[in-house]
Amino acid sequence: MAVDLSHVPHVVELAERTAAFVREVVVPEEERHDGVAARGGEAMRVRLQAAAKQAGVFAPHVAAEYGGQALDMRGRAAVFEEAGWSLFGPLALNVAAPDEGNMHLLEFVASRAQKERYLRPLALGEIRSCFAMTEPAPGAGSDPAALSTRAVRVPGGWRIDGRKWFITGADGAAFAICMARTSGEPGDRGGATMFLVDADNPGMKIVRHLDTLDESLYGGHCEVDFDGCVVPDEAVLGEVDQGYDYAQVRLGPARMTHCMRWLGIARRAQEIALVRASERRLFGSRLGDLGMVQGMIADSEIDMAAARALTLQACWELDKGHSASQSTSIAKAFTAEAVWRVVDRALQICGALGVSGDVLLSRFLREVRPFRVYDGPTETHRWAIARRALRTATR
Amino acid sequence: MAVDLSHVPHVVELAERTAAFVREVVVPEEERHDGVAARGGEAMRVRLQAAAKQAGVFAPHVAAEYGGQALDMRGRAAVFEEAGWSLFGPLALNVAAPDEGNMHLLEFVASRAQKERYLRPLALGEIRSCFAMTEPAPGAGSDPAALSTRAVRVPGGWRIDGRKWFITGADGAAFAICMARTSGEPGDRGGATMFLVDADNPGMKIVRHLDTLDESLYGGHCEVDFDGCVVPDEAVLGEVDQGYDYAQVRLGPARMTHCMRWLGIARRAQEIALVRASERRLFGSRLGDLGMVQGMIADSEIDMAAARALTLQACWELDKGHSASQSTSIAKAFTAEAVWRVVDRALQICGALGVSGDVLLSRFLREVRPFRVYDGPTETHRWAIARRALRTATR
Amino acid sequence: MAVDLSHVPHVVELAERTAAFVREVVVPEEERHDGVAARGGEAMRVRLQAAAKQAGVFAPHVAAEYGGQALDMRGRAAVFEEAGWSLFGPLALNVAAPDEGNMHLLEFVASRAQKERYLRPLALGEIRSCFAMTEPAPGAGSDPAALSTRAVRVPGGWRIDGRKWFITGADGAAFAICMARTSGEPGDRGGATMFLVDADNPGMKIVRHLDTLDESLYGGHCEVDFDGCVVPDEAVLGEVDQGYDYAQVRLGPARMTHCMRWLGIARRAQEIALVRASERRLFGSRLGDLGMVQGMIADSEIDMAAARALTLQACWELDKGHSASQSTSIAKAFTAEAVWRVVDRALQICGALGVSGDVLLSRFLREVRPFRVYDGPTETHRWAIARRALRTATR
Amino acid sequence: MAVDLSHVPHVVELAERTAAFVREVVVPEEERHDGVAARGGEAMRVRLQAAAKQAGVFAPHVAAEYGGQALDMRGRAAVFEEAGWSLFGPLALNVAAPDEGNMHLLEFVASRAQKERYLRPLALGEIRSCFAMTEPAPGAGSDPAALSTRAVRVPGGWRIDGRKWFITGADGAAFAICMARTSGEPGDRGGATMFLVDADNPGMKIVRHLDTLDESLYGGHCEVDFDGCVVPDEAVLGEVDQGYDYAQVRLGPARMTHCMRWLGIARRAQEIALVRASERRLFGSRLGDLGMVQGMIADSEIDMAAARALTLQACWELDKGHSASQSTSIAKAFTAEAVWRVVDRALQICGALGVSGDVLLSRFLREVRPFRVYDGPTETHRWAIARRALRTATR
Repeated sequence: MAVDLSHVPHVVELAERTAAFVREVVVPEEERHDGVAARGGEAMRVRLQAAAKQAGVFAPHVAAEYGGQALDMRGRAAVFEEAGWSLFGPLALNVAAPDEGNMHLLEFVASRAQKERYLRPLALGEIRSCFAMTEPAPGAGSDPAALSTRAVRVPGGWRIDGRKWFITGADGAAFAICMARTSGEPGDRGGATMFLVDADNPGMKIVRHLDTLDESLYGGHCEVDFDGCVVPDEAVLGEVDQGYDYAQVRLGPARMTHCMRWLGIARRAQEIALVRASERRLFGSRLGDLGMVQGMIADSEIDMAAARALTLQACWELDKGHSASQSTSIAKAFTAEAVWRVVDRALQICGALGVSGDVLLSRFLREVRPFRVYDGPTETHRWAIARRALRTATR
Repeated sequence: MAVDLSHVPHVVELAERTAAFVREVVVPEEERHDGVAARGGEAMRVRLQAAAKQAGVFAPHVAAEYGGQALDMRGRAAVFEEAGWSLFGPLALNVAAPDEGNMHLLEFVASRAQKERYLRPLALGEIRSCFAMTEPAPGAGSDPAALSTRAVRVPGGWRIDGRKWFITGADGAAFAICMARTSGEPGDRGGATMFLVDADNPGMKIVRHLDTLDESLYGGHCEVDFDGCVVPDEAVLGEVDQGYDYAQVRLGPARMTHCMRWLGIARRAQEIALVRASERRLFGSRLGDLGMVQGMIADSEIDMAAARALTLQACWELDKGHSASQSTSIAKAFTAEAVWRVVDRALQICGALGVSGDVLLSRFLREVRPFRVYDGPTETHRWAIARRALRTATR
Repeated sequence: MAVDLSHVPHVVELAERTAAFVREVVVPEEERHDGVAARGGEAMRVRLQAAAKQAGVFAPHVAAEYGGQALDMRGRAAVFEEAGWSLFGPLALNVAAPDEGNMHLLEFVASRAQKERYLRPLALGEIRSCFAMTEPAPGAGSDPAALSTRAVRVPGGWRIDGRKWFITGADGAAFAICMARTSGEPGDRGGATMFLVDADNPGMKIVRHLDTLDESLYGGHCEVDFDGCVVPDEAVLGEVDQGYDYAQVRLGPARMTHCMRWLGIARRAQEIALVRASERRLFGSRLGDLGMVQGMIADSEIDMAAARALTLQACWELDKGHSASQSTSIAKAFTAEAVWRVVDRALQICGALGVSGDVLLSRFLREVRPFRVYDGPTETHRWAIARRALRTATR
Repeated sequence: MAVDLSHVPHVVELAERTAAFVREVVVPEEERHDGVAARGGEAMRVRLQAAAKQAGVFAPHVAAEYGGQALDMRGRAAVFEEAGWSLFGPLALNVAAPDEGNMHLLEFVASRAQKERYLRPLALGEIRSCFAMTEPAPGAGSDPAALSTRAVRVPGGWRIDGRKWFITGADGAAFAICMARTSGEPGDRGGATMFLVDADNPGMKIVRHLDTLDESLYGGHCEVDFDGCVVPDEAVLGEVDQGYDYAQVRLGPARMTHCMRWLGIARRAQEIALVRASERRLFGSRLGDLGMVQGMIADSEIDMAAARALTLQACWELDKGHSASQSTSIAKAFTAEAVWRVVDRALQICGALGVSGDVLLSRFLREVRPFRVYDGPTETHRWAIARRALRTATR
């Protein structure tokens, strides 16, 4: 078995069908709503997902048992990048954050009963979900050990108290996976536990929609309050105090699927720039014949190729069951910055047009900027990468 | 007379008063409207400008004859940077684009009668104006020689036909300075003429507001149609066919005043980041004690110091009556990129908070991005800089 | 067959043995001679190659028929990177430029007789060779079509006239593969032919050793004069006028093997920096605990991972028989810059020590700088990458 | 007194004469010896300095009393940049490191007797000197507080013990200014004292020449041993325990004069690249007409303009008697990196020629690299800049 970089035929074929579906069905909806899914509303979500089911491209990452095609991480790399060609592509395929990561987590950790109750309808697109981990400063953010939301035992269950923010998709979600401290103190790591909290729990409230630079993710980014939120014992996901480990189960792959989807947007931005560079004339030359424009185009090609290769490397390690913490950090840190550069260059190539709403580039720029912050800011990953390198060198 | 980098006492004092005025009076309005001047509306503009007059900081660049303090370019460098601390500061002082550049141009080129009719009320903030030069592709943009709007002689005047876009402040402007081709063909330079067109001219119409990444400039960016727009001979600004030279009169200084104002925003962004870095704790350290954060802070300090020094250099050359085309290109190219980097780093330092609307950083990021495109994209300036360097070397 | 990034066991095992051999046998010789192979001389070359044969790591890329292990490009990627850990590693394994690329070319193109005469002793390390293509300006360099050395028919053979420079390893080479124009004119492409020229041909003369920034390559970089150099018909390598195609056969893989070897040096540099960062204390901290140092370490880890992944991608395409021109350009452009950055950062981390000769970092810096120029300057590759991207987008 | 960026006429005239002298007299010597002053030897030093005296450009920074022209820092900025056009220019004018900085220090701190004995012959070029502060790890380097060389009182004087390295110009110097700890322990700051040590003191020995990446500085970089080195009380420079303050007197200006001189080399490198770009044709174009080359040329113009402006800003502050620690850090950090980029781009533009010894670019690259390390590595300055910015923001 030598190094082989070709995807299995099934994946290649599914990626191609996904690409066609996104271009034909999804892109028109996206452009109609200027890339803001909320403007399309629930009707659009239902319509797009129905179309994706019909096209046989829906929820490809989920186990066959739950209606999917059980793509491994490498297969997702090929397919999600195609879904990412449109800001609405992941929503249409039901592979958008945070649902996609939540399904991944539930498949690994949930009990059979929890799977039936939460995973099955989620995988079918009947409901949506959110993942409530991040907290406003000084709580859990780049540093998970700062977790300050607490869950304490009450008869028959737990009571959760704390404040979360940047909870993507919270508005309209049927349930939240909430991470709360069940032992130790903020600042030391201690133990955390994940809880499945139904949206109609009176102890969980959406306080506000955060007004963020990015706007495309369905359900927005919300600030969510857990105030005397009582859940039964069955709401514990996996085991008590194992939350940090489960978070790793979710975070590594979720980082990679972000990379895949945003790489799709980078390619789209580059495509817009290439078309513009082919058509527009400036100073008597075709824009694409000007050396500085060529330099930007090439740098973006290089950035995308490297991002794709690093992501695939990490996916392969994950599929093999390795921890892959170094390779996912490397792939995430590189891809978040690379995608940003690619979109920025595309906008620059298009000039005034790029700044205008007549193409979606400025929308893309706004959407990809936060990726350098969420799922670990670039600096946090670089810090982790360096520490591992130092450990290895001095062993 | 040796090298001296201190501003005259009058300028120092005016800059200090401007700084205080902006912090006390303007910033609260800006934050109330999330940095979008249009949300404050005409009432806010009038209110802010009245306050600026009272504070003695209004229209400092205009000749005393028209109510200003006749600051030279070096003086503007000190004062406009302080005005730029808020997105609304330049509007409050009546030194915002495009009015500020138009006043500068009118002072140089307009006849006495034109000055009374257009410059005086403009300088007093009684009316606003716009500058109609940029055209959609394949018209005049980075390459002014591509100018395709035409003016042809008709009895007693001229008829202008053509399409302009990215005409900042057009909505609500009392008049436009329109640049139109009066000889030659698009692609060669030929001759252009500037015309003063009243907003009630039936041949001039605002077609639409462009939906752009930036939103703070009052009056928006508009697409404007000149369709059989007839103007009298008195509407000619300066002389026929001298438009390209007048454009230079306007563009060099206008580039520099952009740099000054945006440098103010960069400083503001850095201030927000510094405060955050001083207060926020992460991984057991103060954010500002982490080396990678320090690296970003320092790079921004260096960027701002260099931008300020290059801008001042160009201003000094302009004040001495030099062409300053190389130094304004260098200052503009560097400052546009530097300001962008500074705001981007500040946002990154603030993390999730920076992405949210809870601070204005993502607003600033959106506002400064187009500066890398307008008034000559960075690449166009670099091209011009290189050509001049090559000419000098091989002379 | 899904994506698989593990090397075959034989390659893994060979790479490990190579790594051990280089550390134990080669590095001491390198350090003894400050990384300049010429200082070790022919005695050292013979000694190192004998040791490599004994260790079973010699000439692993060559066909078994000629004493090698017939590694494909992917296998070379794993093994050559380990060889590259020392500047003398490739020489020891007989996989240094230009011999390695020449063997590759001869295997593809040479006749049986030519293989016996030239390839066999070359593969055994009995002789060395050079590749005479590059010419001083205005001849063939970045632009191969500028080829100005000419070969014209004479009875029974050809007469070659022209000047070559940067001919690596020419001094001491037993033969040169010389590329000469056999039809067309400099500036158009026309036809080129490759000739095998024995070193004792009186028409070929080494004019001088170029004094270059890099000094480690054995046999130096020479300027070579072909003056009435007559060769027989049997000296034609492959077919007349097919030289440009053969150059491609050589250049794509040769670019990749450069990347592999230099990636080895980058890793070595990083290792030196990591050890230093672990041991050195500054401002009361371990150097490796300072955030800016961590940032540099991480960026280098990312750079190396991306370079390795892009190189492997291109190798896989080459092994599959694809043209791989885009992927080799991308890998070469990225790796040349990345290796440079890694070595530069390592030197910076080591500070004054890095600048001194007490570690080999400044030697490495000098050696890798030219890689951004040879085998196509980065800018030439970026230009080619952009043109291909534009073609694809507008098809 | 408004902002004025023109130098006084005397400085302008001296700078012009210096420029002419360097081009006509110094450059030929430099090229004869491939930029390595040691190859020219003492004979060349004497010859060049005599010529500089005759040309009236010698030692322009020194007080008139000692034969100079008492240029302030701003004047030095103009003149030293012209001297820096050649690697030997500063030596010819007697403004090379470390003598130039030592003269500056002696003027400020030395007693009248010390000035007669050390400063006068130094200013006349009759002797040379060195500055012995830097120590091998874990001693004083980036962190001066780590100073571990000690001086203890002995009857009638002091005994110095410790090891110094990177002592530029030590070989052949008539005396050293040695910094030694006279109170406190390495790691805390404590007190340091500067001593004037004659070269014939048996307690001071040059242990070895360090083999460094740069080679142009006369007298090399040496490792120097102080072993029971006894000096009389009159050897104390200034006052006991005030060494850290005196170091600041020397270091701020010395940083700036480094910037000036290296900016000269950057300009020279750019000039070589511009000439090449004007003459060389590639792919049917003049090299200078290719957009990527123009981009590199422009970036270098911008870098040099910013470096010059930042250096001048810091010089003006120094001349006004300000501490200037922030502005000298900013100027040094920016200039060291900018000069490196400029030389690197020039080499890249020249391609293979740039790598060869046929032009001096690879020599320049080697010489400017250490400037990013010495006089405070870029990272140390960025750390200091950030700390000052944080202090200011939170005051």
